Amino acid sequence: MTKLFQAFQQTNHQLVGHGPRNVDVLKQAFEGINGDVPSDLYGNGRVIEEFQEKIASYLGKEAAVFFPSGTMAQQIALRIWCDKKGMKTVGYHPLSHLEIHEEDGIKELHNIKTILLVDKNRVIEIEDVVNLKEDISCLLLELPQREIGGQLPSFETLQAISEYCHDKDIKLHLDGARLWEVLPYYQRTAPEVCSLFDSVYVSFYKGIGGIAGAILAGGKEFTEESKVWKKRHGGDLISLYPYILSADYYFEKRKDMMGQYYEDAIELASYFNKCEGVKTIPEIPVSNMFHVHFEMDIDKVIPILIDIYEETGIGITSNLRKTDNNGCYTEISIGDQYREVPQDKLEAVFQKLKEKLV
Amino acid sequence: MTKLFQAFQQTNHQLVGHGPRNVDVLKQAFEGINGDVPSDLYGNGRVIEEFQEKIASYLGKEAAVFFPSGTMAQQIALRIWCDKKGMKTVGYHPLSHLEIHEEDGIKELHNIKTILLVDKNRVIEIEDVVNLKEDISCLLLELPQREIGGQLPSFETLQAISEYCHDKDIKLHLDGARLWEVLPYYQRTAPEVCSLFDSVYVSFYKGIGGIAGAILAGGKEFTEESKVWKKRHGGDLISLYPYILSADYYFEKRKDMMGQYYEDAIELASYFNKCEGVKTIPEIPVSNMFHVHFEMDIDKVIPILIDIYEETGIGITSNLRKTDNNGCYTEISIGDQYREVPQDKLEAVFQKLKEKLV
Repeated sequence: MTKLFQAFQQTNHQLVGHGPRNVDVLKQAFEGINGDVPSDLYGNGRVIEEFQEKIASYLGKEAAVFFPSGTMAQQIALRIWCDKKGMKTVGYHPLSHLEIHEEDGIKELHNIKTILLVDKNRVIEIEDVVNLKEDISCLLLELPQREIGGQLPSFETLQAISEYCHDKDIKLHLDGARLWEVLPYYQRTAPEVCSLFDSVYVSFYKGIGGIAGAILAGGKEFTEESKVWKKRHGGDLISLYPYILSADYYFEKRKDMMGQYYEDAIELASYFNKCEGVKTIPEIPVSNMFHVHFEMDIDKVIPILIDIYEETGIGITSNLRKTDNNGCYTEISIGDQYREVPQDKLEAVFQKLKEKLV
Repeated sequence: MTKLFQAFQQTNHQLVGHGPRNVDVLKQAFEGINGDVPSDLYGNGRVIEEFQEKIASYLGKEAAVFFPSGTMAQQIALRIWCDKKGMKTVGYHPLSHLEIHEEDGIKELHNIKTILLVDKNRVIEIEDVVNLKEDISCLLLELPQREIGGQLPSFETLQAISEYCHDKDIKLHLDGARLWEVLPYYQRTAPEVCSLFDSVYVSFYKGIGGIAGAILAGGKEFTEESKVWKKRHGGDLISLYPYILSADYYFEKRKDMMGQYYEDAIELASYFNKCEGVKTIPEIPVSNMFHVHFEMDIDKVIPILIDIYEETGIGITSNLRKTDNNGCYTEISIGDQYREVPQDKLEAVFQKLKEKLV
């Protein structure tokens, strides 16, 4: 545990997140649930079937399957589309979760070749898809592109990419790990966004703040096939209800909060951008998340942040990472906790940050 | 839901299992756990590390990794041993879980060829291993062999197979889904059994009665490699504590009950064997489980069982399956509920069964 993390843990308020990831998250979700509710059983039973139907309908898709993780769900989605076309090549962003956070599962388990579409610092545009030199079975778009601060293409770009892929017999898959979080910016419903995609993955432990778990949605034939692969991956557990019932609880609690988080992110980013040597990416957030870049060396920024946490009792972030140009950055995700920080305390935090960064 | 299952659900007592798989299983486990206990985080943190160390030590292995499922853990174990030897062939029983319950994940995801060692109605003996015509990287033994009633080889056979495999550079993997349950019969400790194997999988929702989850144990190099594959499979969840903390709770509650379950199984099997046209496999159980075979057609046995459930309020089993020879069978697993059935009621059940089967 780093010093920064420890100092962050000891603050009274935090600008980010929904609060600590602890057993209380589970206890709160299950408090109102009757003990005699039967477990799901290897993918069957009311608990899992009803939630799958609910989210399928919420996304405007025919069917949905609950998975323990997005890693599992997305590899399977791409595998199904590759098998359907008989071509084991897919395309995605160079900083896609599949490329950098999954130990190459897509290659090691599924033997799928991946084409990285663009330079890592920007999102995929229609030109990038049109200019692909190789045919692919499936294109994966991540909305928002998390590793570059949560940037988004325009909705018109999504429509153009969707139309192009449809014409070229390329399946379009949505990595919607933070889909709920971008709907307010697009001013679109989930079905309006999802209708552009053949398959969709959504997560329940990011903006929603559940314990873990994912939904993979699409046509019935696709989701039925995904169940077979779910069993192969070892994801068809006898009981997934600890994740499902908590996902449902926090989905209901927070699905209508995404507009609030988005506005809060815009406000908080503006505070950061007023500090010398600090900038956010995107400058104006398009979801509840953004990255904060400091032009200063990480070893200088850490003690400054720790001082502020100790002096104000407010935590800004629990971690910092170095960048290539001798600076450092952190990822900010707004949740329930931002609203709980008193306005004068917030002002004080940034007053101090401004002074100390000079 | 079948009529038999429904009738079973409505009984006051059941001869099998620990009770209904419902939300109460989770609630009971978490009742005594503080809400401020931090979640594990992608395989790290006290909650997961301490449990892994505890079970590793309980099994007498250097290290252990918690997995969401045995399906995932065992495919990974075999893959690691295949890669180590540079040969993608393994051997196991024709009714191994990997062969019949996993949609061929081992073949579809890992491209591993499987050799089925013996006729499906008996366990693997040393001769079967010696007479293998093809070299294999790993031999998987399931103790007990669940699909044939939970039969076991002798401990001397295990020792001989272990020695032979060691000499021939074949890794020996233990499918110990019901390992806890066979220790009383062998009159051996877990480390004594596990020392014969290079890697071991154990489960926490069978005799232990937890919610879900598995441990894979072995040498440190092996378990570290298994963590990489766990991520690839999509099993390295941000939070596994709902399974881990409940596994720990029920492990403590039931690990010393296995001798009792074993004795109860012997008693219950003897009741069945006194009925005309009924026999158990094994005749004398060697764990908490056995199969009951009826020589009568399934469509005749079901109404008989339902009658008994309704007349006595005691459930025997929730399901029956057809056999090849016009009979049917069911799997019995003894848990906490057997002891709760009053002796006179038990006698009454079998008195009625005897009468009705004539």
